[in-house]
Amino acid sequence: MSDTKKGRILLALTGWAPDVWTQELAKAAPGRQVTLEPDGETDPSIEYAIVWKQRPGLLSKLPNLKVIFSLGAGVDHVFADPDLPDVPIVRVVSPNLTTRMSEYVVWQVLDHHRLGPRYRAQQASRTWYEDRDQKAAADITVGIMGLGELGRDAAAKLQVMGFAVTGWSRTQKQVEGVTCHAGEAGLDAFLASADIFVVLLPLTPDTHEILNRDLFARMTKRGPLGAPVLINAGRGGLQNEADILAALDEELLSAVTLDVFQQEPLDPESPFWSHPKVTITPHAAAASMPSSLIAPMVEQIDAFERGEPLLNLVDRKAGY
Amino acid sequence: MSDTKKGRILLALTGWAPDVWTQELAKAAPGRQVTLEPDGETDPSIEYAIVWKQRPGLLSKLPNLKVIFSLGAGVDHVFADPDLPDVPIVRVVSPNLTTRMSEYVVWQVLDHHRLGPRYRAQQASRTWYEDRDQKAAADITVGIMGLGELGRDAAAKLQVMGFAVTGWSRTQKQVEGVTCHAGEAGLDAFLASADIFVVLLPLTPDTHEILNRDLFARMTKRGPLGAPVLINAGRGGLQNEADILAALDEELLSAVTLDVFQQEPLDPESPFWSHPKVTITPHAAAASMPSSLIAPMVEQIDAFERGEPLLNLVDRKAGY
Ligand SMILES: NC(=O)c1ccc[n+]([C@@H]2O[C@H](COP(=O)([O-])OP(=O)(O)OC[C@H]3O[C@@H](n4cnc5c(N)ncnc54)[C@H](OP(=O)(O)O)[C@@H]3O)[C@@H](O)[C@H]2O)c1
Ligand SMILES: NC(=O)c1ccc[n+]([C@@H]2O[C@H](COP(=O)([O-])OP(=O)(O)OC[C@H]3O[C@@H](n4cnc5c(N)ncnc54)[C@H](OP(=O)(O)O)[C@@H]3O)[C@@H](O)[C@H]2O)c1
Repeated sequence: MSDTKKGRILLALTGWAPDVWTQELAKAAPGRQVTLEPDGETDPSIEYAIVWKQRPGLLSKLPNLKVIFSLGAGVDHVFADPDLPDVPIVRVVSPNLTTRMSEYVVWQVLDHHRLGPRYRAQQASRTWYEDRDQKAAADITVGIMGLGELGRDAAAKLQVMGFAVTGWSRTQKQVEGVTCHAGEAGLDAFLASADIFVVLLPLTPDTHEILNRDLFARMTKRGPLGAPVLINAGRGGLQNEADILAALDEELLSAVTLDVFQQEPLDPESPFWSHPKVTITPHAAAASMPSSLIAPMVEQIDAFERGEPLLNLVDRKAGY
Repeated sequence: MSDTKKGRILLALTGWAPDVWTQELAKAAPGRQVTLEPDGETDPSIEYAIVWKQRPGLLSKLPNLKVIFSLGAGVDHVFADPDLPDVPIVRVVSPNLTTRMSEYVVWQVLDHHRLGPRYRAQQASRTWYEDRDQKAAADITVGIMGLGELGRDAAAKLQVMGFAVTGWSRTQKQVEGVTCHAGEAGLDAFLASADIFVVLLPLTPDTHEILNRDLFARMTKRGPLGAPVLINAGRGGLQNEADILAALDEELLSAVTLDVFQQEPLDPESPFWSHPKVTITPHAAAASMPSSLIAPMVEQIDAFERGEPLLNLVDRKAGY
């Protein structure tokens, strides 16, 4: 039974099948109407939009839109719409997503630290080679770019595993056990501090292609892996992909793990696929359960209608 | 300058180059004589033996031998000597080794949980496939066989990563957050409890080939990975290797990671090398820095000569 007095929800997705999301909405908000398209050119019945890469211009046609909910922790996909209406934007902050991202970060940091690529190559060539010079986690510094919800949790778990951790953010942060650097002024010291760089930045005009040749050249530490390792689980737009390939060739970087790409799905012709120093995952670092994302959004809508404040609001000026 | 009043040390290694160990001994015990072979048939000058797979019969020729130090946490290699003299045996317990083993365990558990083998196959075939049904760590139970120095540390770190953890030992244990089972009486409940089994048992007459088809058949949980995953970082003698291959074929096990083998180095002809469900590492789970092993042994020798008790003694009756 849908309650016509309750604000209607538009689910606006590009590239994701809607079924699982409509099912979760039906479960979490049985009293609410949910639609995949507005009725007609403008649709005054829609008050909430839950979006992943909404079609540009779509939301500007909704005169009574009150809140936009991003289905991702990042909101670059929301801002990609040049006609974005000026209503509050709520992003995902969820323990489920955070935990999964830290699983991914610790997994990939350990895979590089514990020589996963080398052992897989040895296995493929039936080679038994016991390396007794393996470094311990304490000999490795992991530098985290972005000390937000995700970066701070990853920092804590990497420390439990024994790694030294440094971090970088826009504004100065204090994070337990982490040597924190901030802004352009702190960037060189940060880039000189680590052996493995984990990128958990949002994509904004300021961070667009921040992962470029100039940045890699400023990573001056030549630790046990020979040159720094780069792990990007933020957004593809953060990286200049030609520069990553060049930096691997020039040995400014020793290896990279990329979960995100400028263009997704990654082009089957991309040189990344077969590059021996590249590990690819298909934007899978933190694919939360739909249930764990939808239920809190519906709770926020209900709270909002009771006059309570919205949580996890995006700062439109900062762009994240 | 070696001090002839201080007990002489025999370094008895098989399969490991002695140089790095003699160098560490020279650093840690500059006042002591160290030899790789006894002088003549019997050698009364030797009071301490530091061993890795010592030649059988070698130690029984040392009338003044006071302590045997194992260069491993496991001592099955020491007991393999049928003429082992009846003197105290000290094994390695070291935070450095423990931390490394937990790195390995968390790395391999995450590699299975986060579908490492599948993503590597996708990368090899240039396939982009976003799987939005990925389970979270909290949906997975890791069962640890052996709740000793290594098992307990791994259990704590797996819990930090979000996994549920159960454990099994010879005598009943209490471990924070872990559902503990013990002995033959607790084995079925333990084997029914977990999705991923991590083996950190010592090799003793009781545990010899405990990882066999019968045990795999008693692992009854069919979780998100379809069938249990086995990770053996204990000793090769714990596993019946033909049974592991059969259990993979029968889908009693979905995948295995093996760091240890009945015969090391692993035979280049072994079917394990090219098996798509097998991950091999070359007995590299916890290769400690020689310095972190030798210095504490020398400290123990000095303390022993001052009349202090030995630490980390092996229970000869239990065999570990
Ligand atoms: N691959 C995946 O599956 C996946 C999944 C979820 C999220 N993500 C990505 O992860 C990103 C981070 O998520 P989050 O929840 O941790 O975000 P968050 O809480 O907003 O944190 C963002 C962090 O980045 C820092 N930052 C932003 N702009 C910066 C700049 N110009 N220079 C330096 N630091 C800057 C922020 O600095 P301040 O602390 O000073 O504000 C903050 O520490 C998301 O934006 C999303 O793109 C990817
Ligand atoms: N792959 C590598 O690089 C590597 C490196 C280091 C060590 N290892 C292996 O790891 C093993 C464990 O090391 P550790 O320092 O943790 O040993 P530990 O402290 O002696 O612990 C051994 C654990 O196994 C349990 N156990 C022994 N016999 C058993 C039986 N018959 N049934 C059930 N449980 C039994 C013990 O039970 P109780 O608690 O009741 O005594 C104890 O919990 C070593 O023996 C060695 O073989 C491998």
